[in-house]
Amino acid sequence: MTVFNMMEILAKEILDRHWDHLGMPCSCATCRNDVLALLLNALPPRYVSTEKGQMFVKAAALNEQFRVDLLQELYRAARAVAARPSHPLAGENGA
Amino acid sequence: MTVFNMMEILAKEILDRHWDHLGMPCSCATCRNDVLALLLNALPPRYVSTEKGQMFVKAAALNEQFRVDLLQELYRAARAVAARPSHPLAGENGA
Repeated sequence: MTVFNMMEILAKEILDRHWDHLGMPCSCATCRNDVLALLLNALPPRYVSTEKGQMFVKAAALNEQFRVDLLQELYRAARAVAARPSHPLAGENGA
Repeated sequence: MTVFNMMEILAKEILDRHWDHLGMPCSCATCRNDVLALLLNALPPRYVSTEKGQMFVKAAALNEQFRVDLLQELYRAARAVAARPSHPLAGENGA
């Protein structure tokens, strides 16, 4: 069975574009994945099973309010991971 | 970046187990994917970026109320696709 959550494309896109402005204490793959997972869990899934579905979701992504909400959720997810990274930061507890 | 929606595993599992009881007019891959996509869009995403996250979601899946909700959403998605398949059914309009 092949279905795909179009939100993954939009979330990765916005995360890549804004990563440098998020002021994250760490830019490792783990922290990026943690932010992406948190972001996707805060967004309504948009699974599609056909190309037609993909076009529909891409069109919705051009909606300005949608992009504002996406950015807001990105900053919320980034703050959460920055506050509690899933690994000790360099220089913390003698690391 | 590698994140994964654990809900996909649970949704595929319950769909495979109950497919024969759903009374679908068609069992083709397109109809199965359409039911799966609708089901996943009705469920809260559970993206994880670590094995630890996977274990957490698997534990949640043992919760009886969660499984009842999952089944309810499966039947809702199945009814929607049965009522409006994304392709003409065999025998319809001379097909």
